[in-house]
Amino acid sequence: MCRWAAYLGEAVFLEDIVTAPCHSLIAQSHCAQEAKSPTNGDGFGLAWYGDRPEPGLYRDILPAWSDPNLRSLCRQIKSGLFLAHVRASTGGATSRMNCHPFVSGRWSFMHNGQIGGFEKIRRALENSLSDAAFGQREGTTDSELFFLLMLDEGLPGDPHGAVSRAAGRVIEASRRVGVEPALKLTAALSDGDALYAVRYATDGQAPTLYTGGFAGRAGRCIVSEPFDRDRGDWQAIPPSSFVTMTRNSTSIRAFAPGSAQLAMAV
Amino acid sequence: MCRWAAYLGEAVFLEDIVTAPCHSLIAQSHCAQEAKSPTNGDGFGLAWYGDRPEPGLYRDILPAWSDPNLRSLCRQIKSGLFLAHVRASTGGATSRMNCHPFVSGRWSFMHNGQIGGFEKIRRALENSLSDAAFGQREGTTDSELFFLLMLDEGLPGDPHGAVSRAAGRVIEASRRVGVEPALKLTAALSDGDALYAVRYATDGQAPTLYTGGFAGRAGRCIVSEPFDRDRGDWQAIPPSSFVTMTRNSTSIRAFAPGSAQLAMAV
Amino acid sequence: MCRWAAYLGEAVFLEDIVTAPCHSLIAQSHCAQEAKSPTNGDGFGLAWYGDRPEPGLYRDILPAWSDPNLRSLCRQIKSGLFLAHVRASTGGATSRMNCHPFVSGRWSFMHNGQIGGFEKIRRALENSLSDAAFGQREGTTDSELFFLLMLDEGLPGDPHGAVSRAAGRVIEASRRVGVEPALKLTAALSDGDALYAVRYATDGQAPTLYTGGFAGRAGRCIVSEPFDRDRGDWQAIPPSSFVTMTRNSTSIRAFAPGSAQLAMAV
Amino acid sequence: MCRWAAYLGEAVFLEDIVTAPCHSLIAQSHCAQEAKSPTNGDGFGLAWYGDRPEPGLYRDILPAWSDPNLRSLCRQIKSGLFLAHVRASTGGATSRMNCHPFVSGRWSFMHNGQIGGFEKIRRALENSLSDAAFGQREGTTDSELFFLLMLDEGLPGDPHGAVSRAAGRVIEASRRVGVEPALKLTAALSDGDALYAVRYATDGQAPTLYTGGFAGRAGRCIVSEPFDRDRGDWQAIPPSSFVTMTRNSTSIRAFAPGSAQLAMAV
Repeated sequence: MCRWAAYLGEAVFLEDIVTAPCHSLIAQSHCAQEAKSPTNGDGFGLAWYGDRPEPGLYRDILPAWSDPNLRSLCRQIKSGLFLAHVRASTGGATSRMNCHPFVSGRWSFMHNGQIGGFEKIRRALENSLSDAAFGQREGTTDSELFFLLMLDEGLPGDPHGAVSRAAGRVIEASRRVGVEPALKLTAALSDGDALYAVRYATDGQAPTLYTGGFAGRAGRCIVSEPFDRDRGDWQAIPPSSFVTMTRNSTSIRAFAPGSAQLAMAV
Repeated sequence: MCRWAAYLGEAVFLEDIVTAPCHSLIAQSHCAQEAKSPTNGDGFGLAWYGDRPEPGLYRDILPAWSDPNLRSLCRQIKSGLFLAHVRASTGGATSRMNCHPFVSGRWSFMHNGQIGGFEKIRRALENSLSDAAFGQREGTTDSELFFLLMLDEGLPGDPHGAVSRAAGRVIEASRRVGVEPALKLTAALSDGDALYAVRYATDGQAPTLYTGGFAGRAGRCIVSEPFDRDRGDWQAIPPSSFVTMTRNSTSIRAFAPGSAQLAMAV
Repeated sequence: MCRWAAYLGEAVFLEDIVTAPCHSLIAQSHCAQEAKSPTNGDGFGLAWYGDRPEPGLYRDILPAWSDPNLRSLCRQIKSGLFLAHVRASTGGATSRMNCHPFVSGRWSFMHNGQIGGFEKIRRALENSLSDAAFGQREGTTDSELFFLLMLDEGLPGDPHGAVSRAAGRVIEASRRVGVEPALKLTAALSDGDALYAVRYATDGQAPTLYTGGFAGRAGRCIVSEPFDRDRGDWQAIPPSSFVTMTRNSTSIRAFAPGSAQLAMAV
Repeated sequence: MCRWAAYLGEAVFLEDIVTAPCHSLIAQSHCAQEAKSPTNGDGFGLAWYGDRPEPGLYRDILPAWSDPNLRSLCRQIKSGLFLAHVRASTGGATSRMNCHPFVSGRWSFMHNGQIGGFEKIRRALENSLSDAAFGQREGTTDSELFFLLMLDEGLPGDPHGAVSRAAGRVIEASRRVGVEPALKLTAALSDGDALYAVRYATDGQAPTLYTGGFAGRAGRCIVSEPFDRDRGDWQAIPPSSFVTMTRNSTSIRAFAPGSAQLAMAV
């Protein structure tokens, strides 16, 4: 299980969210409160949108709390849309390639959760990728693979549908090998314009997800746990939800894996 | 605050102590029970004695729990005398040079604790070093500096006296700048023959220290907290103690900083 | 292209080969003489056999010339059979998982060369792996994949045949996608008893390979280039050769990819 | 010896200088043409000025050619004033703290060259620092120490004088211990407004230094060797020169160590 925070709004210094708040993401890397494991020391990453369509990416394997580069970058870089993540590995080595966010073209993705029984279905899922998506596989995590499944499922044109169908493929793959599906998916993604998030788990125990205002309403956050409980107006997102946040609005709709479609496709 | 374990006896695989026990040092890097901070993720290190008079040294800045090299080295290397350490920084960057153990010639040293108010007395203490000791300074920690003070105080011929006098120098340096001395010193050191440990704090709140048998009495350990509480015969060492462990015996005597001598020397 | 050295004989300190000679493997990491690229700074690795059937493994991503851990380990560890490698990436990120040697059970493997056109045949080759071999895939390099192909081809019982058949699979995979096969394979492997090496290239331009005595005949080396040209009795191994070195003898036989068998298997 | 490049002008993407040109700084990390050593693989660093008075700082110990973070940061970050450096160690471990640029408040500094005989005068020079400068010492290099000497010599108000007096202190320290002064100093520094550079060596063999236009005259560079020889209008700066570059002008004046003043101060 991991911790993450995403922001959309007026450009702010990354440190305003990542390092400065009393319960900032960096603080959560040491002492998360709502996570199964309080320590998220298996690497970290940032994806931020600036002057180019595709995001910048900075990932490293140190614990976030001890990386001076991270501190300086967050102090220097301003962005109106970014994703930040601290990792607690559920499998997969501690390497940069296994750190979130993952990036492809304009899209970025980060994940708290896991694909249960991944070792039993990893190969089938990788084989189901298109050559284009397979060619982007750099690491060994379930999270990166989920991102590639989403890309194959038409992420650019239909984010909600792509996440749903990717979840359906994971569930279907589990069923085919006789394993009870066990997907936990509290994730954020962006194309540089809007910010999307999903909270879902096959067993109903989805990791927490919150939205909240920031910086005098000039921007909004989506986070795995609030970084500033006292001053924020945090709203808990219910399980089985999909959040679409633009600069003007935040909408929440129901989320379910696209199992029906996949069952037909088989 | 950190966690550490040292062993003297028949040669065993390092993993028998460092990674295999249920509450091994690696496990303590994630979830220490008797430490102020449960997480010791700011690097780690091993010093082990083998076919040479001086020890081998392996230190890195990853959390110990996620380093595959550490796991393989501990599985492969056998030694009859070694020191192992997981670090929780109290100041000083996360760099290999700041990881314990520190080594000089045949001597190795590792430390749980800190020199309180170090930033106020660091320069005076460094200036008090001989050129030979100063030339060995590689990092920026209080712990390495304490080791160099011990070397200057005649460590090879008189370990107990050298630790005592080094502690005295730290206390004296605090007093000179009008700072209440605040030394916490639960440390282990070795010359490749015997294993020494000290438990002391100026405020009487010294970090814990234990000795215990291991592997059917073929060897003994000195640890900051037991790694196998159920099966061990762990003995808590009282504060203000100095432990000398040889292959045949373990003796405990009173420890106090050598303040008198230093007061005269000033 | 990379540089490597392997040793079989009386136990010696690793440093006698890896760091001490005037043109040691460490020196070659900075200034190789017979390699296409003089700099081999994309990581390094050691696999050595000691008290266990399986080897120890130490790999890191720094240039070998600047790693103090490597220097201390090589100074401390004695072994009668070991493989050492410095990497110059021909593709594949600089990560520990992509550093040689690769290890599986008792077997270790390291490679100088490359699978030409790897990006066009990688997926087909990975799909051809057994589940057992696929499950051991940790990185993204052509070299690790070649090792896994060898394991699938019966490495333990028939090293020469397994290397031959693995080479055949690579060549066949290239042909199937209409790519001219371009395999360069100067590699060493071991099961902890014997030391094997191969020198082969589809275009006849195989990277160099030498055998030579060491330490007053108490041991022998196989290397990609001699580390001590003046004092050694180095023997250049001709292309298309397979070397089998035991503690008592060194034999060289012809090597060719097992294309015939594979053609039938299709 | 190292390689570096600095830029002042209209904001450009860092990659336009650091990674994109045919003989970019990244290319020079692998194959420098005018350096004593062609390989500059002992770490790298960036300091860039953006929305804050003090610069951002990104340093790491990998060779610059293999760091994906560096590539992404250079692709994303725009700046009108930045310093970039690739390191070839002349002593001092490969650690982040030893990588250039060094930063203090608004000031940044990077260096190609060395203080000859540093081990003989290091302690005296460190002892000569003010407490404020000493407290900023993070690493062990001669270059960082030179930066701190400059800060003590009044860098903010008088850059040319501060560099001169710092050089004088180094030369004086060598003389006091009976060592022939051997300072090589091709360095760049900035306060976020102007860009300064110096080329000097006690033996007259100063490492090279060039200025040149860039990007259609919208900006200018100061570099240790040109990154784009064919298209640039590079001007070699003569030894014993001090360069002051503002957004409007570049001036070159004679540089000599401030030895007279120091001789009096003794």
